Amino acid sequence: MLALEKTTIADQVRSDFPILNQEVNGSPLVYLDNAATSQKPTAVLQALQDYYQQDNANVHRGVHTLSARATDAYEGARDKIQAFINAARREEIIYTRNATEAINLVAHAWGQTLQAGDEIVLTVMEHHSNLIPWQILSQKTGAVLKFVELTETQEFDLEQFRSLVSDKTKLVGVVHASNTLGCINPVEEVITIAHQYGAKVLVDACQSVPHMAIDVQAMDCDWLVASGHKMCGPTGIGFLYGKRDLLRSMPPFLGGGEMIADVFLDHSTYADVPHKFEAGTPAIAEAIGLGAAVDYLTNIGMDKIHAYEAELTAYLFQQLNKIPELKIYGPQPDAKGEGRAALASFTAGEVHPHDLSTILDQAGVAIRAGHHCTQPLHRCIKAQSTARASLYFYNTQAEIDAFVVSLKDAIEFFGGIFG
Amino acid sequence: MLALEKTTIADQVRSDFPILNQEVNGSPLVYLDNAATSQKPTAVLQALQDYYQQDNANVHRGVHTLSARATDAYEGARDKIQAFINAARREEIIYTRNATEAINLVAHAWGQTLQAGDEIVLTVMEHHSNLIPWQILSQKTGAVLKFVELTETQEFDLEQFRSLVSDKTKLVGVVHASNTLGCINPVEEVITIAHQYGAKVLVDACQSVPHMAIDVQAMDCDWLVASGHKMCGPTGIGFLYGKRDLLRSMPPFLGGGEMIADVFLDHSTYADVPHKFEAGTPAIAEAIGLGAAVDYLTNIGMDKIHAYEAELTAYLFQQLNKIPELKIYGPQPDAKGEGRAALASFTAGEVHPHDLSTILDQAGVAIRAGHHCTQPLHRCIKAQSTARASLYFYNTQAEIDAFVVSLKDAIEFFGGIFG
Repeated sequence: MLALEKTTIADQVRSDFPILNQEVNGSPLVYLDNAATSQKPTAVLQALQDYYQQDNANVHRGVHTLSARATDAYEGARDKIQAFINAARREEIIYTRNATEAINLVAHAWGQTLQAGDEIVLTVMEHHSNLIPWQILSQKTGAVLKFVELTETQEFDLEQFRSLVSDKTKLVGVVHASNTLGCINPVEEVITIAHQYGAKVLVDACQSVPHMAIDVQAMDCDWLVASGHKMCGPTGIGFLYGKRDLLRSMPPFLGGGEMIADVFLDHSTYADVPHKFEAGTPAIAEAIGLGAAVDYLTNIGMDKIHAYEAELTAYLFQQLNKIPELKIYGPQPDAKGEGRAALASFTAGEVHPHDLSTILDQAGVAIRAGHHCTQPLHRCIKAQSTARASLYFYNTQAEIDAFVVSLKDAIEFFGGIFG
Repeated sequence: MLALEKTTIADQVRSDFPILNQEVNGSPLVYLDNAATSQKPTAVLQALQDYYQQDNANVHRGVHTLSARATDAYEGARDKIQAFINAARREEIIYTRNATEAINLVAHAWGQTLQAGDEIVLTVMEHHSNLIPWQILSQKTGAVLKFVELTETQEFDLEQFRSLVSDKTKLVGVVHASNTLGCINPVEEVITIAHQYGAKVLVDACQSVPHMAIDVQAMDCDWLVASGHKMCGPTGIGFLYGKRDLLRSMPPFLGGGEMIADVFLDHSTYADVPHKFEAGTPAIAEAIGLGAAVDYLTNIGMDKIHAYEAELTAYLFQQLNKIPELKIYGPQPDAKGEGRAALASFTAGEVHPHDLSTILDQAGVAIRAGHHCTQPLHRCIKAQSTARASLYFYNTQAEIDAFVVSLKDAIEFFGGIFG
């Protein structure tokens, strides 16, 4: 009955998300697939509409009024993102399509400096987006990939990491909050250790930036990536944070308009960051929409969002822990719901997670089933796939109840088949 | 007084573009910057809203209802684009952020096959997006860039092209309609000639796909790129067309989720096209919005759009040709307004194009001034920068009149200064 007496954040914001007010297969939608993508508040959709209906024009290169307005809004959103993650400088924010492109940008541009024998340390829990670009780079350069494994509680093994990192290590790539295990990795300690060896650190913050206050200066990461669509923003936009001098030292990634200074037929010179890495007409409306999402989250308060999600996490795990058929992956939360992300990946005996998700969908409950883009991790935890319920601040305790009831029904149904 | 008696397309569609119904600096907005970006009809904005308010979910990997709906809409838009350019197969359409990324994709992926001494033939009129990626590739591989120059009428020099292309030529990159000169290049002949030497041809169709019917099978191009935002679609989306077997032969570009088949820690196998080239969460809403734009354009009819724009072009040039101070670049249209794109780049004596644009903006007229991302071309035509008025099917003859009146006023004003 935790926290039900008071008005929750979800109570306050629920009407901002009209998509949640629909029936799916005859039942109220219970959207618990937030680690895949979040829903968008009306304020973000309004920002998109306002841009397209009032200011739409190409940015930077125009002197007419609409172009000036569009440029101000596009660049203003960069300022908002800078403040949101406490970057020291606005030009340290590079817009990308998604976090995947942001990582590829670093792998293509900075990665050209690597040589055979250089080492890249990743973890076995990385999303494919923070693995494949380094595999491709490794194949091109001869750089060697090494992997941090899991502790017994299925968390980042800091001791093993200490044994992996050395003067040969040029890069450490680490996910901040695992999208499958839900563990929160000790990125500050990882960064301190890596920097002792002169290695750069890239933090995949897709599952942390939407859910907790992030301070890239305090963290001291060299790069950090996040995706807009997981933090109430539009699709088609994400960002790369990078320390300015590091970004400046990197050759360009994509070539084209906007990223140049002087162009001749046989060679060109390039613009300064951030524009050096933003070739072509950018995702203007999407950047503005992400700025509106940042405003929205900031107005609620990231600390409040985190605290409320911790409450929900505690309740979710209390309920799931009561279901004996379930195997839940990753660490348990503490009594306050802290110590892990607001998601639970699980299996239920012989029942295929896709079948679980399909049955739950019949009751209006949207969870995800599959490898969650972490196939190597699934091999480590000896699961072909998992089901995953993932929360956001607009979810309610009542939705967790509806999910748990449906889950129990599904397990009972399949128990009749498999049992 | 051409065509004023009948109802024009602009009359019919004008109310679909509420952004045009505004005042800028106290005068009605006259938006003549369509070569930089087009405005979006209400139907496209509604498609975005509908997606976000009803169906928003991540695509492909989910089995729940919203994810299935989102996937259907996202992949359905691909079918629409396929039909729009008459591609033989749906998997020949790759979503990208913009045309620039599409060209970079080809340069990074296919470009890896090039060797020192191989030749790439471009034109001096290419947009920076179809120049810089090949410069970078040339620096990496030792491939040699060669350039088709201009005829006396500032058009593609087909004879010189014949002398440039040889067995050494691996790629010809050519813009279909120049964003600065407005000439329509003979891409079919270029492709026939290039194929005789076994060279591939990439067509930059950013300024043609929005304005005329395109048939990639009839054209027989190997790749074709276009940007969504110039054809009534959202920002943040464009596409690469490529022949299927060619796309399949190319290694991946960006690595990450969605583009994989099986992932292991040390290596991975990749998905088939188109997904091999769409790493990470795609620009879902934007693809759907582009599909709605394609529907919108198709419903009007590309042949009708082209014919109406030709009428406007004829009228525009009739009026501009009467202003003795103007130097207009590129070929003149014929009496029916055919033979060039619906835009005019010009200079007016000593007046800086930025100043022209600024003065016109005071009268609500939005034109562009600068190098239009074609710096080398501007050196060829001996202009530091040009002013450019560019039309779309929602523009009217009355808007051209308003532009011409303002332009004459501006020239008179500056004449008082410079004269």
